[in-house]
Amino acid sequence: MARFKLTIEYDGTDFVGWQRQDNGLGVQQVVEEAVKGFCGETVTVHVAGRTDAGVHALGQVAHFDLGRDAAPDTVRDALNFHMKAWPVSIIAAEEVPGGDDGFHARFTARERAYLYRITNRRAPLALNRNRTWWVPFPLDADAMDKAAKVLIGRHDFTSFRAAQCQAESPVKTLDVLDVERSGEELHVRARARSFLHHQVRNLVGTLKLVGEGKWTADDVRRALDARDRSAAGPTAPAAGLYLVEVLY
Amino acid sequence: MARFKLTIEYDGTDFVGWQRQDNGLGVQQVVEEAVKGFCGETVTVHVAGRTDAGVHALGQVAHFDLGRDAAPDTVRDALNFHMKAWPVSIIAAEEVPGGDDGFHARFTARERAYLYRITNRRAPLALNRNRTWWVPFPLDADAMDKAAKVLIGRHDFTSFRAAQCQAESPVKTLDVLDVERSGEELHVRARARSFLHHQVRNLVGTLKLVGEGKWTADDVRRALDARDRSAAGPTAPAAGLYLVEVLY
Repeated sequence: MARFKLTIEYDGTDFVGWQRQDNGLGVQQVVEEAVKGFCGETVTVHVAGRTDAGVHALGQVAHFDLGRDAAPDTVRDALNFHMKAWPVSIIAAEEVPGGDDGFHARFTARERAYLYRITNRRAPLALNRNRTWWVPFPLDADAMDKAAKVLIGRHDFTSFRAAQCQAESPVKTLDVLDVERSGEELHVRARARSFLHHQVRNLVGTLKLVGEGKWTADDVRRALDARDRSAAGPTAPAAGLYLVEVLY
Repeated sequence: MARFKLTIEYDGTDFVGWQRQDNGLGVQQVVEEAVKGFCGETVTVHVAGRTDAGVHALGQVAHFDLGRDAAPDTVRDALNFHMKAWPVSIIAAEEVPGGDDGFHARFTARERAYLYRITNRRAPLALNRNRTWWVPFPLDADAMDKAAKVLIGRHDFTSFRAAQCQAESPVKTLDVLDVERSGEELHVRARARSFLHHQVRNLVGTLKLVGEGKWTADDVRRALDARDRSAAGPTAPAAGLYLVEVLY
């Protein structure tokens, strides 16, 4: 019996999201079928962040228990072999403590880091289709970064929470929310112990209103204080979002 | 009557290359049909570098003549509108001098710059599928860069020339050939007035032999001096190659 932690990269474009669903293929199913192909065992793969359809991962983390021992590098290479038809790649596999007090991808995570990429140029996307959000009019990254600071800290994020969110409480602590320009791209980086459903995309959709000059940082504060989803900006598209890393 | 210079980005994955061909869609056809959709004129779009199937462009340059005047920004936006089903994007359109002594995308180009991207890690590609060359064993970028210097200058590049190359002479002047590591990627940058068919991919395929320790810089020099394609390394895959810019 051994528990394995996986660090996973995937292109979310053609998946219904991480989770198994009836309406298409989830990344979870690809990984679970790879485990079955590798050793014949039917396992459940538990994940740190259940990304939505179209959302990508550079460093998603998941774990599963095997009924037998295996060298971690063998697990990594064997799963990659069995998944090669899909844009999913095991970057690393490690053996971790199992059992009820052991490692759990979701429950023992200390921090999750997301990156949101915006391409800010007049010309449409070619190489970055399904990779970034195309915003053709100029965005003021400095104004967005300043407004982002209003959202840092422990708050009731009801205004940035999807209706279908299953979290028990809308109160979360946002540790980092930075906006930086890099050439024709804007990068929004967010870090927290955990996020509400659609929280990062709703934060980005609201900061974009600041970037285009329609909103001020005070408007963002008012949207936060309203505790009402309709008081904040729209949800940014899934394709710009990347789960970058999960810390334990 | 007006001549327009276009700067074009495209994802070469699903094209048979730049040029119109019978066996699939070329980028040229997409652009020419967009011009037709925009103004009804049937034009020939002349290109700086006829990229192969799977090769990408960040700054390909092309030109065409219109029978009537048009604002360059209108040309850019209208072509992008008509091409939106395809991963091809006009980054810029400018009016340039026409006629026999005027601007010609291919013949008046002073320098072409290519980038070749290698992902050098054990894990297969997920987000960079069709974007980089996956090399799973460690490459020594410094050794590759040193060997690259052997190839700089004016040489007979027969050893790095595809059999189907139509250039009159195999003698070319290579101005830049640099190899640099950037995290898990290696970037090979090449600049010359013009290149032979497959020249960059054949240079990269040869430098990779140096990176994995099979060849030395002296072996690269011997391959160059042999003036025989079979004396050099294999052709690197198309997907890692980007036409970055063309200078006039």
